[in-house]
Amino acid sequence: KTLRIGVIGGDGVGPVVLQAAQRVLEAVPGIPKPSFVPLQAGFEHFQKTGTALPRETVDALKSECTAAMFGAVSSPSHKVAGYSSPIVALRKEMDLYANVRPVKSVEGHDPRVVDMTIVRENTECLYVKQETIEDTATGRVARATRQISERASTRIGRMAFEIALAAAEVKKQRGGSYGWTGAPTVTIVHKSNVLSVTDGLFRESVRAVAKEYPTVEVNEQIVDSLVYRLFREPEKLSTLVCPNLYGDIVSDGAAALVGSLGLVPSVNVGDSFIMGEPVHGSAPDIADRVPSIANPLASIRSAALMLEFMGYVEPAAKIYDAVDESIRQGKVTPDLGGKLSTEEVTEVVRKQL
Amino acid sequence: KTLRIGVIGGDGVGPVVLQAAQRVLEAVPGIPKPSFVPLQAGFEHFQKTGTALPRETVDALKSECTAAMFGAVSSPSHKVAGYSSPIVALRKEMDLYANVRPVKSVEGHDPRVVDMTIVRENTECLYVKQETIEDTATGRVARATRQISERASTRIGRMAFEIALAAAEVKKQRGGSYGWTGAPTVTIVHKSNVLSVTDGLFRESVRAVAKEYPTVEVNEQIVDSLVYRLFREPEKLSTLVCPNLYGDIVSDGAAALVGSLGLVPSVNVGDSFIMGEPVHGSAPDIADRVPSIANPLASIRSAALMLEFMGYVEPAAKIYDAVDESIRQGKVTPDLGGKLSTEEVTEVVRKQL
Ligand SMILES: CC(C)[C@H](C(=O)O)[C@@H](O)C(=O)O
Ligand SMILES: CC(C)[C@H](C(=O)O)[C@@H](O)C(=O)O
Repeated sequence: KTLRIGVIGGDGVGPVVLQAAQRVLEAVPGIPKPSFVPLQAGFEHFQKTGTALPRETVDALKSECTAAMFGAVSSPSHKVAGYSSPIVALRKEMDLYANVRPVKSVEGHDPRVVDMTIVRENTECLYVKQETIEDTATGRVARATRQISERASTRIGRMAFEIALAAAEVKKQRGGSYGWTGAPTVTIVHKSNVLSVTDGLFRESVRAVAKEYPTVEVNEQIVDSLVYRLFREPEKLSTLVCPNLYGDIVSDGAAALVGSLGLVPSVNVGDSFIMGEPVHGSAPDIADRVPSIANPLASIRSAALMLEFMGYVEPAAKIYDAVDESIRQGKVTPDLGGKLSTEEVTEVVRKQL
Repeated sequence: KTLRIGVIGGDGVGPVVLQAAQRVLEAVPGIPKPSFVPLQAGFEHFQKTGTALPRETVDALKSECTAAMFGAVSSPSHKVAGYSSPIVALRKEMDLYANVRPVKSVEGHDPRVVDMTIVRENTECLYVKQETIEDTATGRVARATRQISERASTRIGRMAFEIALAAAEVKKQRGGSYGWTGAPTVTIVHKSNVLSVTDGLFRESVRAVAKEYPTVEVNEQIVDSLVYRLFREPEKLSTLVCPNLYGDIVSDGAAALVGSLGLVPSVNVGDSFIMGEPVHGSAPDIADRVPSIANPLASIRSAALMLEFMGYVEPAAKIYDAVDESIRQGKVTPDLGGKLSTEEVTEVVRKQL
């Protein structure tokens, strides 16, 4: 069995943090020796070639790769004709319908317990990008379509219940004083008090799946008050299932709870492909620093999450533990108050494996 | 000159917190003696009569009232045929196109400086409530329209620039060690990296207005990273201008920074009408407590905000100061760690006027 990982660095700090992830994947025991396929995408690539997501990248992922890692893309600060985000396109092209974002504090380091996973629908909502604009007597009027389907809501619901069960299992095993040890719970995030049809369908579809998971508790929260609760009582939240845009916003908010966007991993999951991706962006402000001070931990954790979803649970746990240990020891980049470079942090993690 | 205020208590704690606001309006010096017109709306009213927002309420507001106060509405936890949120309808009916939500910490009380105002577009975005659903071979597919117009974006932009200027003026006068004293700044909140047409139009329209305000600094932030920043460096944010749904989410998030949703006021502003409204909901969990422990401060501050937008700047400032003082003295309801009832807090505020 081989492990061929497509590596799409993208823009800014994307390539350097993915290099860190590769070095950790090379070092972790318990997986087939990985090989890496460098692939292109991003705004910089668009500027050079006129294409943000080249056909060859998608073809290579589909034909050659077991899984992939994605770095980051820059968003142009002004409208650029013909440019469209390659990560959004990639999620759709590969039908990576779930974006799974665990946000966890580190035991023995963070004062506040945070242990939640945001399960974000990854293919529809406003991300279908159907937009129109017209001239009217009172000026231009633009419209976008927000699509919510029973099919996409059902499959993301199922993913959320599976994750809630798995998370409860891990907690039962690890046990101890830290973290929530209660029953598995899924919180449906929606705004059906305003969007009764679209978010109504989302809620109803997830609730229909719930019947297959009688041991999982289901509750729900309107997205605005969920964001309020996120900051008031994060310890009470565990698995959240969200339509695409709410998931995007909620996960950035949750990242603020654990000290840095530079810590939060994600994985884009489909039925036949998996792509790890740090939640942070391309960080243009620090992208050109030599040596790099970009925090590699989100990317390293994303590699672990990718392994976990491929079934390599033990190797993934080893990486998580090594990352936690480097945080506890303060061997971190400046965004976390440390003094180390990207490469030095990566070395620390490798040594703890 | 008279002051006839429509009072729409709505559901849950709505009526009791509005009563607190009325008592403060009766006591504050410097305004014409107010009279109050009790009006109906809400989910409870819908359950009794089949109508959430009776025609008479809208007619009375338009024909009899100088301004209004709105309490809160309950959102049914399941789909209810024929029910639609009366507050959303009211904002549109009265063309109250701006929802202004100042979120401020209390000097000498809160450790963290928060002094921002969210200027939320109040009539369009996904709140146009144009939704459809159809059966397809793969299940139901629902769609909602998100509308962003040049006209609405321009007028909300103008409102934001005016507020930024006014806020800078207040800060210059109050000065001192507390709070931001720099140049007026407006931050445009959008997601044009995905919604290049709709949010592109929003951004472009606000930027076009900016030319009329050369002394105001303009910057922008993608909504997800804005929510991250909200919690990482709130002291750097001042006036935010947002499309409707982002404004809804961001303002609940900001409320978490100042200790309780029960503190955050808002005002719905149109060219010819003004309606104060606490940001919190109907709080069904405590609605039936006798004596009431609902925090009246958001409602009292909303009354002050209403006065401020009607030009009664000094009386409004008196109310703000009285509220701040009651917070500093810990004379507050249990949500803020105090022991007082709604009525007792209201008395404390009245005495400080
Ligand atoms: C870059 C952007 C298109 C993307 C998104 O909105 O999904 C990002 O914010 C994310 O969370 O992965
Ligand atoms: C009750 C609901 C319709 C409303 C909204 O979404 O505008 C509320 O959340 C608010 O912020 O005033």
